[in-house]
Amino acid sequence: MKLTILGCYAATPRTITNPTSQLLEIKNRMFLIDCGEGTQVQLRKNKIKFSKINQVFISHLHGDHFYGLIGLISTFSLLGRTTDLHIYGPKGIKEIILLQLRLSNSWTNYGLYFHELESEESETIFEDEKVVVTTIPLKHRVYTNGFLFQEKVGERKLNMDAVLNYEIESCYYQKIKNGKDIALEDGRTIPNSELTFDPIEPKSYAFCSDTVYHEAILPIIDNVDVLYHESTFLESEEGLAQKTLHSTAKEAARIALKANVKQLILGHYSTRYESISLFKEEAATIFSEVALAEDGITFEL
Amino acid sequence: MKLTILGCYAATPRTITNPTSQLLEIKNRMFLIDCGEGTQVQLRKNKIKFSKINQVFISHLHGDHFYGLIGLISTFSLLGRTTDLHIYGPKGIKEIILLQLRLSNSWTNYGLYFHELESEESETIFEDEKVVVTTIPLKHRVYTNGFLFQEKVGERKLNMDAVLNYEIESCYYQKIKNGKDIALEDGRTIPNSELTFDPIEPKSYAFCSDTVYHEAILPIIDNVDVLYHESTFLESEEGLAQKTLHSTAKEAARIALKANVKQLILGHYSTRYESISLFKEEAATIFSEVALAEDGITFEL
Repeated sequence: MKLTILGCYAATPRTITNPTSQLLEIKNRMFLIDCGEGTQVQLRKNKIKFSKINQVFISHLHGDHFYGLIGLISTFSLLGRTTDLHIYGPKGIKEIILLQLRLSNSWTNYGLYFHELESEESETIFEDEKVVVTTIPLKHRVYTNGFLFQEKVGERKLNMDAVLNYEIESCYYQKIKNGKDIALEDGRTIPNSELTFDPIEPKSYAFCSDTVYHEAILPIIDNVDVLYHESTFLESEEGLAQKTLHSTAKEAARIALKANVKQLILGHYSTRYESISLFKEEAATIFSEVALAEDGITFEL
Repeated sequence: MKLTILGCYAATPRTITNPTSQLLEIKNRMFLIDCGEGTQVQLRKNKIKFSKINQVFISHLHGDHFYGLIGLISTFSLLGRTTDLHIYGPKGIKEIILLQLRLSNSWTNYGLYFHELESEESETIFEDEKVVVTTIPLKHRVYTNGFLFQEKVGERKLNMDAVLNYEIESCYYQKIKNGKDIALEDGRTIPNSELTFDPIEPKSYAFCSDTVYHEAILPIIDNVDVLYHESTFLESEEGLAQKTLHSTAKEAARIALKANVKQLILGHYSTRYESISLFKEEAATIFSEVALAEDGITFEL
């Protein structure tokens, strides 16, 4: 699992920072999460193949999280894309995009599918054979969802020593990987546990931006490997965080601690701060496994 | 008059080039012309004070000319703007912007006025004591206007030698600048022409993007000082220019020649070309006073 931070600052794009967007690579799928203005340029800077993105998840309809979407959709067209594109985001997103396409007398030469969200409960919005994506209802000034990306448990790993020892033919390997016991020709049945190792532990990633400190998300993100939690403000601006329904670095750390996550990544910094190092310092007083998102960096999870 | 090119490439924004946007400074007014994605960052890069922009002119609703507008409007709000902002653009632009503001539960803390255009004839859309702006109906795949910016004739310049010679008191200076003759106490009347010089020749700038070669614009842009005319393609792609209703560099030069303009600036280059120098070479075979727009450069007109 690989996470590339395309932008991790709040509010307005600047020459040196970009609004929210991330690319999550998981089991060879490339999920784009949020799409602030300038995201397509950030994708180019990070040498990410546009054609590999088939799903876009938009947390909420504040500009710093989706103003780059219409441009990306248009660019996909100009680049001759033919593969379907699926957009997951709050109700209204379809109207915004289609209105702009209609008024520019444009259309996509690929299938453009909108999956509009309006539930206040966590729900599964994407699932294939390897990955499940569920929403994390957040509490912000407009309807907002975080997203939980979970790998499914993979197939069991062959214990080759045991398999060769019992002289089992290779045509049975897939069956064994699927967890089946094997009956030998001499009548013995070998239990699967003797022939395999446990599959690789599936990884999970939770994206939570934007939100006030909100313990209701704890059961959904319990034990995730990596949590990205917004920390728009430092403790000195706690009142402002409350007022604007954002979080401080310490509040993000408190959520990470209570949810027992393995690693916390902070981001969505207000552009008022000259340096972001204090975010890590403040969070680390509560939760030690904390890292700072920065535009253009990649986390190998 | 000063023209800053914020972006001058067609289609998609890239790491090294930006879609169309220009800032025209004229008589202390700052007019923003078109606003492709990333324009607000380009404004910052060029150290242009956001608060000085009070009028935005949008030629047409293709993304590379207006996808940056909603972000700019939002940023103006975040920066605490209180001065009115006037948007001039094709019918539909108001619906797009207001829909996005409504769905993000946002509003501007300044007056946001839309002047929607739908006339097929040239019309005056802005006028104050020093500048007039009229539309230049263009021919493109959607409803499109260029814009003609004209300084008004200023007041006459005092001939100080003559004024002092006749011992005219300074309280009469404004009257003289306004063109009035002066009656002296000894009964003589001094004609204004003896007391003043002609005012500085008013300047004009015509912005024409996007359009196919379209001679109908010639009467409107006749004799302008500076013409920016799109040249999306070179002559080798003339067929493509016809098909997409764009112009070649030579066609832009032909328009400049026929309109008897003083200077031609080319822009809106297709991103297919590795270098833009050929645009100048091709145009110069027809019209010699030609310059190339480039992102981030300024023309002192």
